Amino acid sequence: MPKPSKHVFVCVQRRQEGHPRGCCAQQGGDAVMNAFLTQIQQRNLFNTISVTNTGCLGPCSFGASVLVYPEGIMYGKVTPEDVPAIIDEHLLNDVPVERLKVPEFVWG
Amino acid sequence: MPKPSKHVFVCVQRRQEGHPRGCCAQQGGDAVMNAFLTQIQQRNLFNTISVTNTGCLGPCSFGASVLVYPEGIMYGKVTPEDVPAIIDEHLLNDVPVERLKVPEFVWG
Repeated sequence: MPKPSKHVFVCVQRRQEGHPRGCCAQQGGDAVMNAFLTQIQQRNLFNTISVTNTGCLGPCSFGASVLVYPEGIMYGKVTPEDVPAIIDEHLLNDVPVERLKVPEFVWG
Repeated sequence: MPKPSKHVFVCVQRRQEGHPRGCCAQQGGDAVMNAFLTQIQQRNLFNTISVTNTGCLGPCSFGASVLVYPEGIMYGKVTPEDVPAIIDEHLLNDVPVERLKVPEFVWG
């Protein structure tokens, strides 16, 4: 497999009901992961974009969390509807989606 | 949390016994993850180095796989004994550990 130009990490951490930190699974992490995989497949972007599910990325209260490297940009409260914008604007055109970035005090 | 200067992703993917691709869990992924967490804690490196467990990173036959961003360097067949070298040489001194890199046809 070629080294991807962009690597998307999607938190799908699952914690038990009532856990004080919550988790991205409760905030749609799996659906976001599936949206990325579906889009990457439909648009045949496998050779340039990798997508990997992860455990906790840190900003649990801003889940679902999505982290893009090599830039190290953390998106928060991501929904499946946001995925096309992340792909079109950031992954393919190198313009991060400002409205989806977590606040600087969370990751910055 | 501050944005880390290095972010280590450790594959801990688990597949059922006999699966043709195998998995990093069968090749010590959990022990490698624990070695990173223990070292980062003992050396108080939380503010500069993040460690995250992941699903499949791709090179299953070279597990346990460890991927370091922002450089995008993939290490293979990593054992807990290799973790201090990755921390000392690469994460703290920016010199990747050549002997642990996966071959270029795997990731390059």
